Amino acid sequence: MTTTASHPAQDAPSPLALVPFVSVGNMMRILNAVGVEAFIEGLAAVIEEDFRRWTLFDKTPRVASHSREGVIELMPASDGVAYGFKYVNGHPKNTRTGRQTVTAFGVLAEVETGYPVLLSEMTILTALRTAAMSALAAKYLAPADARSMAIIGNGAQSEFQALAFRKLLGLDRLRLYDIDPAASRRCARNLEGFGFDITVCSSAEEAVEGVAIITTVTADKQRATILTDNMVASGQHINAVGGDCPGKTELHRDILLRSSIFVEYTPQTRIEGEIQQLAADHPVTELWQVIAGDAPGRRSALETTLFDSVGFAVEDFSALRYLRGLLKDLPYCEMLDLLADPDDPRDLFGMVLRASSSG
Amino acid sequence: MTTTASHPAQDAPSPLALVPFVSVGNMMRILNAVGVEAFIEGLAAVIEEDFRRWTLFDKTPRVASHSREGVIELMPASDGVAYGFKYVNGHPKNTRTGRQTVTAFGVLAEVETGYPVLLSEMTILTALRTAAMSALAAKYLAPADARSMAIIGNGAQSEFQALAFRKLLGLDRLRLYDIDPAASRRCARNLEGFGFDITVCSSAEEAVEGVAIITTVTADKQRATILTDNMVASGQHINAVGGDCPGKTELHRDILLRSSIFVEYTPQTRIEGEIQQLAADHPVTELWQVIAGDAPGRRSALETTLFDSVGFAVEDFSALRYLRGLLKDLPYCEMLDLLADPDDPRDLFGMVLRASSSG
Repeated sequence: MTTTASHPAQDAPSPLALVPFVSVGNMMRILNAVGVEAFIEGLAAVIEEDFRRWTLFDKTPRVASHSREGVIELMPASDGVAYGFKYVNGHPKNTRTGRQTVTAFGVLAEVETGYPVLLSEMTILTALRTAAMSALAAKYLAPADARSMAIIGNGAQSEFQALAFRKLLGLDRLRLYDIDPAASRRCARNLEGFGFDITVCSSAEEAVEGVAIITTVTADKQRATILTDNMVASGQHINAVGGDCPGKTELHRDILLRSSIFVEYTPQTRIEGEIQQLAADHPVTELWQVIAGDAPGRRSALETTLFDSVGFAVEDFSALRYLRGLLKDLPYCEMLDLLADPDDPRDLFGMVLRASSSG
Repeated sequence: MTTTASHPAQDAPSPLALVPFVSVGNMMRILNAVGVEAFIEGLAAVIEEDFRRWTLFDKTPRVASHSREGVIELMPASDGVAYGFKYVNGHPKNTRTGRQTVTAFGVLAEVETGYPVLLSEMTILTALRTAAMSALAAKYLAPADARSMAIIGNGAQSEFQALAFRKLLGLDRLRLYDIDPAASRRCARNLEGFGFDITVCSSAEEAVEGVAIITTVTADKQRATILTDNMVASGQHINAVGGDCPGKTELHRDILLRSSIFVEYTPQTRIEGEIQQLAADHPVTELWQVIAGDAPGRRSALETTLFDSVGFAVEDFSALRYLRGLLKDLPYCEMLDLLADPDDPRDLFGMVLRASSSG
């Protein structure tokens, strides 16, 4: 075979063939280097930037494959320059076998060539982007002087939510509730040293008392009414994160009827969000309109605002784009030999032949 | 932190977190170990098996993101036990910058848990599965005594097509034509030693003369009529591989009107295949019906048969499934730390915290 400068040896793929890969281990190294709060703040800024240019994006509701045990979804989005997609599963029974309910990974590619330029774990990254999205929405929707938040559901997402709201809104008082008291204790313990004033509560009613913001982030499909109408006071902001697929909601319908509702991408949220309980033409505002200045956010101190969050592909796109930017200064990735790169692009078989003869 | 048998050290992810990865280099090692022809034969058998149980599959047309320069597609499929998807791009101008027109990778996952169990390069694997699919279709559709084939378009796919037809149908005479004579010479040279009688032709008319099978596998969107009606004789089988997206066809419409047409998945082929030139209700037969014994294949020696191949997600699923089976006996993969696996599945943040403190 012939060797060239770009193909120094049979087994050394050219740079064109290599795709940077961020493993779980490297994602944690990146988080450690940047700091969780700074990471979320940087990510929220990129999401904000992408929501401002929302109309540029090629958007589609996620492509879901449902089974008895759960769902596997592909979430693509593109801004015309880059293309990203996320693979994500949701399997509530997974924890019984020591697995995660939700795992995810994603890819960013160049639109011009179709070549992938980043493969990353997204289980941790999704938790970070969901928290960044929640806090970003609250920046536009929550009462201006918000300092306190109830978190109902103290699972894998709860600490990230707390840190995001602290960094973006200056929140420092938390009231935690989970049907499993051990989950609340774990959340409180994990947040020690981050400067919160934390109260572990024994009911959802107790948790929401007097707070400016209520975050619901429960995981169970069966428990459909986490908040009832009498529990929500005028002027509160509700950050509803856990209701995110058909049949899975957290809020009583009466709360929705008296709230100003903000969503990510209406066609998807009508199917997956809290508003699946409402008529298909119930008025909602897409958050990008608020961020772009095309629609008002919170209009008065007495208004009840609701961010009906389900997670949309553009946020994952933003997360991959942000991560790719960080890799310019941080060495925490491996290079994967993912793409075939023959010397002559039309000679794929010749590449295989030569590999075979060089054994 | 605590360590357990399954978590021997901070930086060693548990087996649940690891996903086998087949790089381009390892794909070539696997092909070398199995042999290209034997690989294609084994893969065709798995495709045949999956086409027999076609009705079990969760099928959807590919999800495409089009741009001025090309297309990026996601192709998911599931049989209820496993779920697979392929990422594939098509960028005709890529060869100008030394890149592949088509690159691909794919993932196989367990439906029960949603956990990925295989990540693989699929640029080479797609070439193999396309060839296996073509030869499998021809087994049911080509004249029984077929020994000779014209290949029009001698790019990256041509040698794989030749070897697939040789292995599955016993073909040993090839007539090659490409608008670039160097491509035909390269194809002929690569196939030296595989026992073919090869004629390099100077026109498509010359190439198709007297052959039992015509394979068209050109890549250019602009060149829309590779075969005209007068070039095709009664009784020939046409294996039309190159026409595979809106606006990209290879055959004159008159050929379609007098052929018995077989397709993979009708909703997708109506959009992407040669039959995009025909009325939306023009009769076609899905190949799985022939393989399952529900519809006839070739009915007479004078019938012109056409396999209007566009490549469907079930074939990629079969390819990933076949590859996963091979890995049981072959050591050619790496283990990627792709999935976050905290000791307590609800304690994702705790895992990040502990990584930070052990940093």
